[in-house]
Amino acid sequence: MSQTIRIAMDAMGGDFAPAEPVKAAVLAVNERENIKMILTGNQAQIEAELAQYEYKKDQISIVPTTEEISCNESPVDAIRRKKDSSMVVALKMVKNQEADAFISSGSSGAVLVGGQVLVGKIKGVERAPLAPLIPTTKGVSLLIDCGANVDAKSHHLVQFAKMGSIYMKHIVGIENPKVAIVNVGAEEAKGNALVKETYPLLKECKEINFIGSIEGDEVHTGKADVIVCEAFVGNVILKHAEGLSKTLIGVIKEGLMSTTRSKLGALMIKPALKQTLKAFDATEYGGAPLLGLKGLVVKTHGSATSKEIKNAIFQCVQFSEEGVNEKIKEQLFPEQNA
Amino acid sequence: MSQTIRIAMDAMGGDFAPAEPVKAAVLAVNERENIKMILTGNQAQIEAELAQYEYKKDQISIVPTTEEISCNESPVDAIRRKKDSSMVVALKMVKNQEADAFISSGSSGAVLVGGQVLVGKIKGVERAPLAPLIPTTKGVSLLIDCGANVDAKSHHLVQFAKMGSIYMKHIVGIENPKVAIVNVGAEEAKGNALVKETYPLLKECKEINFIGSIEGDEVHTGKADVIVCEAFVGNVILKHAEGLSKTLIGVIKEGLMSTTRSKLGALMIKPALKQTLKAFDATEYGGAPLLGLKGLVVKTHGSATSKEIKNAIFQCVQFSEEGVNEKIKEQLFPEQNA
Repeated sequence: MSQTIRIAMDAMGGDFAPAEPVKAAVLAVNERENIKMILTGNQAQIEAELAQYEYKKDQISIVPTTEEISCNESPVDAIRRKKDSSMVVALKMVKNQEADAFISSGSSGAVLVGGQVLVGKIKGVERAPLAPLIPTTKGVSLLIDCGANVDAKSHHLVQFAKMGSIYMKHIVGIENPKVAIVNVGAEEAKGNALVKETYPLLKECKEINFIGSIEGDEVHTGKADVIVCEAFVGNVILKHAEGLSKTLIGVIKEGLMSTTRSKLGALMIKPALKQTLKAFDATEYGGAPLLGLKGLVVKTHGSATSKEIKNAIFQCVQFSEEGVNEKIKEQLFPEQNA
Repeated sequence: MSQTIRIAMDAMGGDFAPAEPVKAAVLAVNERENIKMILTGNQAQIEAELAQYEYKKDQISIVPTTEEISCNESPVDAIRRKKDSSMVVALKMVKNQEADAFISSGSSGAVLVGGQVLVGKIKGVERAPLAPLIPTTKGVSLLIDCGANVDAKSHHLVQFAKMGSIYMKHIVGIENPKVAIVNVGAEEAKGNALVKETYPLLKECKEINFIGSIEGDEVHTGKADVIVCEAFVGNVILKHAEGLSKTLIGVIKEGLMSTTRSKLGALMIKPALKQTLKAFDATEYGGAPLLGLKGLVVKTHGSATSKEIKNAIFQCVQFSEEGVNEKIKEQLFPEQNA
């Protein structure tokens, strides 16, 4: 029997909290026995949500908190001051090893700050990148970094490449994952100052399988398994993908409703289309981990549904079972284990 | 009667040259009387292409050249050394006022270098940005800068905002165009060092209608008419839009072919879908101008078809008739006209 994984969940974070996080916890424990969910947040509200469902009572517990962190406040101030917030309390449980993982759909900035400040980075890790899996025609690729630590230096990007490779190998199961750097041309001489400085460092890095540059139009082709970029660029790509997909699908739906003939056709294609678009749906891929921390911290989208959060919970289990952060520590800093 | 516009076209540039550029010239002159096309390139090849079509002979002429610039050579070296290339000869015609505009589907880098070196920037313009129109759900927005001059400074971005506003007003006909800067959050305090430095400058700039930040997911919503960014980011967005659209439409097409029922439905929706996707098709918007030059330089996509190039030719006519570069000069540097 596999070991039980304890997951501290910020039940008050996200656009649909506490409803969706609580429902996700219920779905997760009803599907798997080796998960214990610890929900932090407003006790009355969480209990009211839980009352709607049948679930295994011993797998879900509540740690009542009195404060919440919103997306409109300074992440640094909020993490420092709101000591009894659902986020801070859950993060501290990971720090104190009372939980194996942390999940929140709340303020990205606060998760990033809280993860680094409260859980702490592995010794030697300079920055903890936020690394979501994005859909490609061949499966998924890791886009690293999409976090809030912008203006990275070349040595940060090299660490991202290494951590991303370990993640793709152990979580997604890709042997010798291909690493590329986001660039504006294929040649080594192309790029901005940061990319020009980073490219040769990646090229000479023996721990990774560096294949060169990846341009904007290649991001979703599966050309690279680990797509390395500075966080400003990563954030723009991630949000652009989300916005453009939504826009395009909206445009297509509108087109389908434009004539009687197309309306009939739309009914006929609906099941097949739904199936295919599902394969390209970000909600299937769960949350984005903050890599390189001493514990597991996962950020789900602000508008994440219970299904998406449930997937992120399962991802945490795998992440924890595979010991990815431990592998990062071992492989990036072997001297620490000597 | 409107004035005749003389357009020097690099007939050897692009993936389908000289076939597509030559066909575009034929389509353009057969549709409009006030255009004269001057095709630079290999005379025999151009004549062979022209021989396939009926067209008004006095509206197309050839200037034979012996060299070509490829996408694989250094733009700076190529522009300097290949003096008898189709691109350099056509650009020089604009410089010498033997042509009113230049169009090429060839090497972007060479067009950018050649435009700035051979045609020259308006006095006071620090950088000439490449500014394509991108599709939005409400029409089009100008993405400025997508060129090869990466690592811009804040004062460059302020000039881009001003030039882009003049373009959107006079070419696209939008009164008081809304200007936004690409960012990773909505608040003024968000962003990388460049954006944080540029934001207050745009805010206090009286000549433009600055509305704040625009995030990746808002790029195609029409929130802003002029989307200002540094060229690395602009290039990534532009190519990402192209790649993701192609991928998504491919995924959808595959889905439509997956069952017998969906195949039948696909036949029924085809006309309506074609119509809608056309509205979202980059080929409708012609070429991207290099703004702020002493003459008109337009870059069409490397894989541009004759239809796309023809649209770019018509755009040149409008650009020339509206005197956008003159307006940039007048409005950005009124002291030069004093």
